[in-house]
Amino acid sequence: MTQQDYAGAALGRFIADFPADGFSPALWHEGRRSLLNFFGGALGVAQDPAVATALKVMAPFSGPERATLIGRPEKLDAMGAAFVNCIAANLLDFDDTHLETVIHPTAAVAPPLLALAELRGFSGAAVLEAFLIGAEVECRIGVSVSPGHYARGWHITSTCGVFGAAAGCARLLGLDPAQSWTALGIAASQSAGLVENLPSAAKNVGMGNAARNGLLAALFAEAGYGAAPAAIEGRLGWARAMGDAPDVERITGGLGARWEIARNTYKPYPAGIVFHAVIDACLELREGLGEVADILVEGDQLLLDRGDRVLRNERDARVSIHHCVAVALSRGRAGVEDFSLAAVQDAEVAALRGKVRAGLDASLPRGAARVSVVLADGSRRVAEVRAPRGSEGRPMSDAELEAKFFANGGSAAQAEAVWGLDRGASVGPMMRLFAAR
Amino acid sequence: MTQQDYAGAALGRFIADFPADGFSPALWHEGRRSLLNFFGGALGVAQDPAVATALKVMAPFSGPERATLIGRPEKLDAMGAAFVNCIAANLLDFDDTHLETVIHPTAAVAPPLLALAELRGFSGAAVLEAFLIGAEVECRIGVSVSPGHYARGWHITSTCGVFGAAAGCARLLGLDPAQSWTALGIAASQSAGLVENLPSAAKNVGMGNAARNGLLAALFAEAGYGAAPAAIEGRLGWARAMGDAPDVERITGGLGARWEIARNTYKPYPAGIVFHAVIDACLELREGLGEVADILVEGDQLLLDRGDRVLRNERDARVSIHHCVAVALSRGRAGVEDFSLAAVQDAEVAALRGKVRAGLDASLPRGAARVSVVLADGSRRVAEVRAPRGSEGRPMSDAELEAKFFANGGSAAQAEAVWGLDRGASVGPMMRLFAAR
Repeated sequence: MTQQDYAGAALGRFIADFPADGFSPALWHEGRRSLLNFFGGALGVAQDPAVATALKVMAPFSGPERATLIGRPEKLDAMGAAFVNCIAANLLDFDDTHLETVIHPTAAVAPPLLALAELRGFSGAAVLEAFLIGAEVECRIGVSVSPGHYARGWHITSTCGVFGAAAGCARLLGLDPAQSWTALGIAASQSAGLVENLPSAAKNVGMGNAARNGLLAALFAEAGYGAAPAAIEGRLGWARAMGDAPDVERITGGLGARWEIARNTYKPYPAGIVFHAVIDACLELREGLGEVADILVEGDQLLLDRGDRVLRNERDARVSIHHCVAVALSRGRAGVEDFSLAAVQDAEVAALRGKVRAGLDASLPRGAARVSVVLADGSRRVAEVRAPRGSEGRPMSDAELEAKFFANGGSAAQAEAVWGLDRGASVGPMMRLFAAR
Repeated sequence: MTQQDYAGAALGRFIADFPADGFSPALWHEGRRSLLNFFGGALGVAQDPAVATALKVMAPFSGPERATLIGRPEKLDAMGAAFVNCIAANLLDFDDTHLETVIHPTAAVAPPLLALAELRGFSGAAVLEAFLIGAEVECRIGVSVSPGHYARGWHITSTCGVFGAAAGCARLLGLDPAQSWTALGIAASQSAGLVENLPSAAKNVGMGNAARNGLLAALFAEAGYGAAPAAIEGRLGWARAMGDAPDVERITGGLGARWEIARNTYKPYPAGIVFHAVIDACLELREGLGEVADILVEGDQLLLDRGDRVLRNERDARVSIHHCVAVALSRGRAGVEDFSLAAVQDAEVAALRGKVRAGLDASLPRGAARVSVVLADGSRRVAEVRAPRGSEGRPMSDAELEAKFFANGGSAAQAEAVWGLDRGASVGPMMRLFAAR
């Protein structure tokens, strides 16, 4: 096997040589949608203590060149800004999802690109190109080891995010095919992040690292460091160490022709993605609903594993079947404010939560749900949802994405800047709109 | 299982509460020996291009507080200095070895401690304490997953180094038991580094990250971030993701009474540790040796796997049975200069290399070797070494360690400062001796 036969060689050529005019208009627009959703998510939590703490810890270790922190007045160097903006974008898992891998693709990839572009003057179009290339590499590597990789305990958004960040930064920096592959090889030695730590803030550190270490990998490749040709699929390489052998065909098959990132989806609700069908079913059957006596939610094992648990705080609320049902039925919506501590403690919501039971129906596909409500008069209403809002079968429209952006605190001027990102000679004016004064 | 039953709880108490006067004089001195060996290794390669490149890449991302880079005039912030000094200390694998795990314990642990101590004014004694605590945690976690972890493809010096750095920094920062454990939990989500990448500079990035991310973990724990209680041994935690379940008893059994770091060893030769017995055997039988016709080196499979390969450059020389035999027999030594490109190209050495054959003797224990030389007159000499110089059975003396330090370019004043490290009110004067003017 020569070096040219490894997946890395094909990825390196893709990163360096895919033509700037080779993106379809639909794909190009999906990139814009991903970025709008990303900016909104980061804005919505800009004041969260987890973000403030990350900034406080990183600030003494920031060089003089400064990049924007979304929704905040402070700045950090590109490494620090990549770290903090990535944490913010993924903090509530309200960001985008590549459903097959459950990767949230944009959080780790966009921040280092925006920071690099701000500091070195790259254009918005160059950022959008680099984002699509980076996110594509991230998702393809993720697909090649799914589902075993996540099942083994790897937080795939972190472990594959570092590849996406490295690939995107390599593209933006104009590295050649060999250097671009080397960036991925160096990223392989930095890939980390555990599912066990997901309920804790340690998850944020793993995410932030994916963004900043991907940037670091590209900078080291640019500076001449090397990597093993089989860093990904070698006998002692990334894929085997972190699970089983990769399905290399899934990494390289149809590269540049078929796009995984074209399948990106966006969440309408700030709750675990498996609860979206539950919420949609409740919204569907609530109109004119009388007094509720009993509620049964049915779904596959994953839904029960993730959602049938005790509720203590906002974090629990976002992964509680009971809470999702209660707010959707009582309030007719499931927005950020419906998962706040106030909503958790709301007496009407709490009463309704107490009437919810969850049961297994293994015949329902993953991501689907059936909600059966028995009313006080003994009558029964049932709604079943197989393609919830935001899923591949029922994607959010541009208008819905914009409404989500506004609900997260975004302004019309900011939204306009993101939609027109690829028309600006630099990302500076857009990033200035996202800096808090 | 309550949180108190996890390994982390015991490690957190050990890190925070082990009494400063609880170290035996022998253990305390072993700490000094580890640091002297560390400083020499980093000094010896201070001008290496790999170190210069690491500095160049990190410099724009350094905050204003400055810490010493060993053997160089430049400074970086604590995060950058930890990164670069760790790379230097481990660059040639000429650093220390905990033989059971093949962890090089000091490279990732000492640099962040020295940088933190320089910046915040901690004493040398506090650094030595924190080093022993950190290296102990590093080796115990490594022992608990050995040998399967390395065999799976994990570069254990990187993957466990981040725990050692986190534990040491937690001790130095005075974190409480819960915070100290949290630092390890955050480190678990940053643990990375692949064996596949070992022959490349990507290995250096993995090493540097272990040092700086361990520091980062402690700083985030100090700032209030959390981690999962079972981040190490949980079902979706570090040990299972990175291999099999840990032997928890090896992590916590006899903690504070029996010390893994007391078993630290130091290399007399800048070659792979499995070649040390080969070199010693050659040195033993060379006296008065006539013209050599044929040389047979025998050892276990690991020796053959690592050493029976084509020789192209200095890096290959350090892992070549043939070259180790040739310099030891012809020059009567195997120092840094005997693995230089000049030595590789030396005609006499090359001729002798051509006479070396390697064969399997599975009855020899790991780390042992037998060298049989047939002379031109048909006579035969055989030497077998089971405990090579520097191994646990035949440790290097203080004088030998000092000679190695001097051979690496260290001065008498520097050596004196390291031996007396624990007497200084701050590490500043010692670190100033290690900064190049």
